[in-house]
Amino acid sequence: MQDIFDKIKNNRGPLGKHAKESHGYFTFPKLEGEIGNKMTFRGKEVLVWSINNYLGFSNHPAVRKIDGEAAVQWGMGYPMGARIMSGQTSLHEKLENDLADFMQKEDAFLLNYGYQGCQSAIEALVDRNDVIVYDSESHACMVDGVRLHQGKRFVFKHNDMESFAKQLEHARKFSANTGGGILVVTEGVFGMAGDQGKLKEIVEFKEEYKFRLFVDDAHGFGTIGENGRGAGDYQGVHDKIDIYFGTFAKAMASIGAFVAGDEQVIEFLRYNMRSQTFAKALPMPIVAGAIKRLEMMRTEPEHKEKLWKIATALQDGLRKAGFDLGVTNSAVTPVFLKGSLGEATNITMDLRENYNIFCSIVVYPVVPKEVIMLRLIPTSVHTLTDVEYTIETFKKIKVKLEAKEYEASEIVDWR
Amino acid sequence: MQDIFDKIKNNRGPLGKHAKESHGYFTFPKLEGEIGNKMTFRGKEVLVWSINNYLGFSNHPAVRKIDGEAAVQWGMGYPMGARIMSGQTSLHEKLENDLADFMQKEDAFLLNYGYQGCQSAIEALVDRNDVIVYDSESHACMVDGVRLHQGKRFVFKHNDMESFAKQLEHARKFSANTGGGILVVTEGVFGMAGDQGKLKEIVEFKEEYKFRLFVDDAHGFGTIGENGRGAGDYQGVHDKIDIYFGTFAKAMASIGAFVAGDEQVIEFLRYNMRSQTFAKALPMPIVAGAIKRLEMMRTEPEHKEKLWKIATALQDGLRKAGFDLGVTNSAVTPVFLKGSLGEATNITMDLRENYNIFCSIVVYPVVPKEVIMLRLIPTSVHTLTDVEYTIETFKKIKVKLEAKEYEASEIVDWR
Repeated sequence: MQDIFDKIKNNRGPLGKHAKESHGYFTFPKLEGEIGNKMTFRGKEVLVWSINNYLGFSNHPAVRKIDGEAAVQWGMGYPMGARIMSGQTSLHEKLENDLADFMQKEDAFLLNYGYQGCQSAIEALVDRNDVIVYDSESHACMVDGVRLHQGKRFVFKHNDMESFAKQLEHARKFSANTGGGILVVTEGVFGMAGDQGKLKEIVEFKEEYKFRLFVDDAHGFGTIGENGRGAGDYQGVHDKIDIYFGTFAKAMASIGAFVAGDEQVIEFLRYNMRSQTFAKALPMPIVAGAIKRLEMMRTEPEHKEKLWKIATALQDGLRKAGFDLGVTNSAVTPVFLKGSLGEATNITMDLRENYNIFCSIVVYPVVPKEVIMLRLIPTSVHTLTDVEYTIETFKKIKVKLEAKEYEASEIVDWR
Repeated sequence: MQDIFDKIKNNRGPLGKHAKESHGYFTFPKLEGEIGNKMTFRGKEVLVWSINNYLGFSNHPAVRKIDGEAAVQWGMGYPMGARIMSGQTSLHEKLENDLADFMQKEDAFLLNYGYQGCQSAIEALVDRNDVIVYDSESHACMVDGVRLHQGKRFVFKHNDMESFAKQLEHARKFSANTGGGILVVTEGVFGMAGDQGKLKEIVEFKEEYKFRLFVDDAHGFGTIGENGRGAGDYQGVHDKIDIYFGTFAKAMASIGAFVAGDEQVIEFLRYNMRSQTFAKALPMPIVAGAIKRLEMMRTEPEHKEKLWKIATALQDGLRKAGFDLGVTNSAVTPVFLKGSLGEATNITMDLRENYNIFCSIVVYPVVPKEVIMLRLIPTSVHTLTDVEYTIETFKKIKVKLEAKEYEASEIVDWR
């Protein structure tokens, strides 16, 4: 018999094992100062490409105003308790109505946090006789929802419609035996590589397989589709999404989330989601702030236009400069390079220390070995000068990488 | 093959099936106006006993001040991103240091929401070779953590040490085969019936069974133990709790939570909890507000003293009046009556409509059939007059119940 803590001390996990060297720089870095295109990293101004402040709402005066005012008016403690017990308010209801209206669905249900909300919604929709068919690159919270499912699940290769068809076939056979149904789970925009879920192709299977479709559109909500209605709208199949999940944590620059769909289904979720029935409601300032942000999304198209001016310039410029951006068709801008983990580390430091560019770096096991993914998130508060400078810098980085300059074992001590 | 939505429409869940009659009254009731002992329910002032505002922080001027100021200073969007990626701040670190210091543990890790935090911490601590032994009345979020565990779990009868010993024995046999360890999961204070987990008895088994102890002390944190250090402190075994979980959603009147324990274990959690690695950090106003609330907990003992003045008066008075309060040894005050679901409904309405008392009612399946539990949560902002009035009212209710007056099928239409 082992002591759990001994085990933990000896096996610190894929990221934890590097914690000593990486903490405060590669992991848990502090970006300070007002949120925007330029922030402070270790005392120095850097150009930031790693926060999901797509529409620039985080530091928008109107958003800051409502956030401050609502907190003064209500405090962060209001309401106390879960919605179903003692935490219901008219403002929560208003936001749900606004969201339903905006999403062109019959009803919406607020979720007190995106991660637990998504997970809990997925597991609430299915019972042990039902089958989940899900994309292999689904976000951790969706996977946790699938893990909580007591019945069968089939995973299809990311955005691979042949694999999807095959898994649907398995699901049909299985559910024919149990008498259950099929829930298909995928994303609107995959946040890592920026490719949209193939919703248009997926819904074409609906007639034959009679499944229901759950879409987590965390990165699509606010950034694509009419007024930011998301990936379903963008692909012209919004009405075929049965449960639309959107979060306030990205384009809305807040926390919390929602599901939207048919009235009866949303009511079912309102009464059957463990993480909502047994956890505190979203605080009033978050709710008031989300109402305002949603209004800005629908009435001020300039934020999304600015985002896309920047995103387009960035992606076109990088492609023109010969960079591989993979299959992105959203604002998420991955730049794929070939190199080792050591090279990835050196590139990141070179960017931060010598070029004052802060972006996230993604390595194995998220991408294959010898692949380095620099992940850029353009926002409406970036400028074309930022874009130009970044492209020029990336060109230099690429030259250095190809000249093996990052191979040097001499890694600058960032401390 | 079934359509999942058809299934949902035909089977609306244990609470959902009553939604039509209960929504807005028994479920999702709106308590309006400033949070306190008196609030507004359907346009009328009621005495409220159903919110976990134990220390009166929700509407305390100093709390309201910091909440408002921090939201003005930072907005709700700050920081953007998960702690590990781009959401780390000095304020988050400070709160963790303050919590570790207060909890007399080496380190603490903030959690962006209690429900997902607790669930995710439990599953992160164990792998498929490890065994979880948990109390049968553990909160939903703990059960979800257990459900995510890929290895074996054994449940013991609520607070029953004979059953606990038996399950530990099973766990030892199992882990001897797998080479894994044992994690025991229980609560400091069980929020429904108010009884403390038998931590003192549980830790006595540690020497023989070498398990690690995880305690969810949502209702104990702030309300019992020195300065509100919780159930472990109250029972004199705080140092035997290996992972202490506390939430900001109750005594702290906010949202968010934390785990505290040994440095290496907390660092492991900081780097290995899915719900924290893949979800946005707690917003700055929540963090700044929690720092202030924690300071008030440790430097202003009057809030806890007031809470206990009210709780003691309420519990002593009710017991003296012959009411059965079960086995509570915390501020949570359940009142057990015998009666049907119909009678429970009528009592609730009589209390709300004719006596202006708003409390939560708990029925089957949470308590056995024919048991009605009225659950009262005393707080520091209640008065002795509130207590006296409530006891007098409960006496009347009891007389009526015993005279079968609530049996009448004529239920007042609350609409």
